[in-house]
Amino acid sequence: MQKRLFIPGPTHVRDEILKQMSMSMIGHRSSEFSGIFSETVSKLKRLMYTSNRVFISSSSGTGLMESAVRNCISKRCLNLVCGHFSGEWHNIAILNGKPADSYSIEWGDGFTADSVRERLESGNYDSLCLTHNETSTGVMNPIYEIAEVVRNFPEVLFMVDAVSSLGGVKLEVDKLGIDVCLTSSQKCLAVPPGISVCSVSEKALERSKSIPNRGYYFDFQVFLKYYEKQQTISTPPISQINALSKQLDHIFEEGLENRFQRHSRMAEYIRKWALSNFEIFPKEGFWSDTLTVINNSRGISFAELNKKLGERGMTISNGYGKLKEKTFRIAHMGDLQMDDMKELVDNLDDIIGL
Amino acid sequence: MQKRLFIPGPTHVRDEILKQMSMSMIGHRSSEFSGIFSETVSKLKRLMYTSNRVFISSSSGTGLMESAVRNCISKRCLNLVCGHFSGEWHNIAILNGKPADSYSIEWGDGFTADSVRERLESGNYDSLCLTHNETSTGVMNPIYEIAEVVRNFPEVLFMVDAVSSLGGVKLEVDKLGIDVCLTSSQKCLAVPPGISVCSVSEKALERSKSIPNRGYYFDFQVFLKYYEKQQTISTPPISQINALSKQLDHIFEEGLENRFQRHSRMAEYIRKWALSNFEIFPKEGFWSDTLTVINNSRGISFAELNKKLGERGMTISNGYGKLKEKTFRIAHMGDLQMDDMKELVDNLDDIIGL
Repeated sequence: MQKRLFIPGPTHVRDEILKQMSMSMIGHRSSEFSGIFSETVSKLKRLMYTSNRVFISSSSGTGLMESAVRNCISKRCLNLVCGHFSGEWHNIAILNGKPADSYSIEWGDGFTADSVRERLESGNYDSLCLTHNETSTGVMNPIYEIAEVVRNFPEVLFMVDAVSSLGGVKLEVDKLGIDVCLTSSQKCLAVPPGISVCSVSEKALERSKSIPNRGYYFDFQVFLKYYEKQQTISTPPISQINALSKQLDHIFEEGLENRFQRHSRMAEYIRKWALSNFEIFPKEGFWSDTLTVINNSRGISFAELNKKLGERGMTISNGYGKLKEKTFRIAHMGDLQMDDMKELVDNLDDIIGL
Repeated sequence: MQKRLFIPGPTHVRDEILKQMSMSMIGHRSSEFSGIFSETVSKLKRLMYTSNRVFISSSSGTGLMESAVRNCISKRCLNLVCGHFSGEWHNIAILNGKPADSYSIEWGDGFTADSVRERLESGNYDSLCLTHNETSTGVMNPIYEIAEVVRNFPEVLFMVDAVSSLGGVKLEVDKLGIDVCLTSSQKCLAVPPGISVCSVSEKALERSKSIPNRGYYFDFQVFLKYYEKQQTISTPPISQINALSKQLDHIFEEGLENRFQRHSRMAEYIRKWALSNFEIFPKEGFWSDTLTVINNSRGISFAELNKKLGERGMTISNGYGKLKEKTFRIAHMGDLQMDDMKELVDNLDDIIGL
């Protein structure tokens, strides 16, 4: 039985976009593919509010997290860690032999601009990794305020994991001065998984030239070489690129501001339900507009709940990592509508007996 | 207009498999996905004649070429270079900071077992990279003879790029003692691009543990950790994995031996045509059963030829790299049938005026 997904990726994909996945194959060095490639790239630039180049990678977002640290860290990186995925980014830097410090805070807490300023003022860092929306805790970091601080440190390359936020909330790459902004297809963009994308500033491209041991598959300079030819490094997931291009048309038809407002309204609705019946896990002020992590304060059996939901054609997520048993997660991202949220809540109420 | 692809990847994908690409999304940490994952892995083991683990990567084959060198080279690697793609593998090793020598021969030539033995006897190497089928030149290297030699050097990890051969010709990984055998979905397996797979021996897994700076995304130990949970490192292209699983059923229904014979018959047919009207580019003895590279000895305009073929719903490939103007390429791989080859040849004859 097909289930409507209220999980933080892959998200529900509309039938029209699923159909696009069935396109017949074309050569990836053909002019037809170059056409799709360059159209997709210019739509992505519009989505990201940037005039930077946007590279398309045949990998998940995790691959581009590796790419960012291999290309941008020279002196030392500061990793802002507030949950599993931001912690992984720090690990990825270390495993790639990069000098990096983890600035870790409690799960559920988010970063303030002041605390980031303090760390950067040490002068130790030439790069900073921020996970905009931490999918394990439901924390959305105040990126506009943090960006204000980062711009005072021109030596610091600002790398942002926007995997579970881009396309669901406003993220103006150029205005924010983000040097590397990465995301993948299967979250707020509501396209099947298989590609990830990142915008890369001139400053980051310039830095990468001087960094040794960047490898090949994730090297910005290799991305750039093929980008100039409107191609990808190697054979890409043509089906997903085509589907993303069509989905971006749909996103612009909806209107970016409308899309962000829809996410915000869905989030508000789910938070209201969560506050009435449970508790919200993250600290107030850091609540995410794409995903709500809820304390299981009633001690219900999540497995039982999700099983019953499944019988009704819907599924939500359990907690992540050390929060597995303590929380559960409801994603309100992608193409889900307010009506989907209402239907979900009605069913949750019915099953739990609220 | 949809074109039948006689290019060396992506290859023609059957409608039934294209339809599989439109599956509704499921969670990649769900038991449903784990089921698809473990079924696909056991079918891949059967295809590769191996009991080694087979890892699934969200990348092209190029990504796994990077993975192989990052995980396996400690002392020094010997790269057998006979064309563009084998040359790239050497570059990838160097760009990843690995000690590696390129043993380069003329494009069109292939490697003999004796010449490989001689190099390995130097005692300089702990790893060897062989491109089974060199897609730029149409050379298929005699892997059974070379494997006989390599088994005499137990210190040497044997890495094979089987991107344009696996599933089209017999390649018995365990019998040949291949430590890392990698391929991708869009060539002989006739599935849309987006995933690549590699078998990894215990010896290679053991070696990788002692290798520093393996990164994360392509680290064998990280692959292994998730493999044991019947999952992938990060969100994978679920659509392609599902399509590959269904396509492997189809391949086993055809029968592996039948499939290999079909490739061999198609190759023979195209070679006969090429020999009657042009010349075959690679040296005799190294002709590939999945791809024929043909000298354009008549000096025809390839662009014009392929344009006219295109109007008839078919497409072949120009030469690769430095052979771009001198040769053209006809792939006979994947799900193409003898009738497709006959139709192609009839149209080529008609257009060229043979």
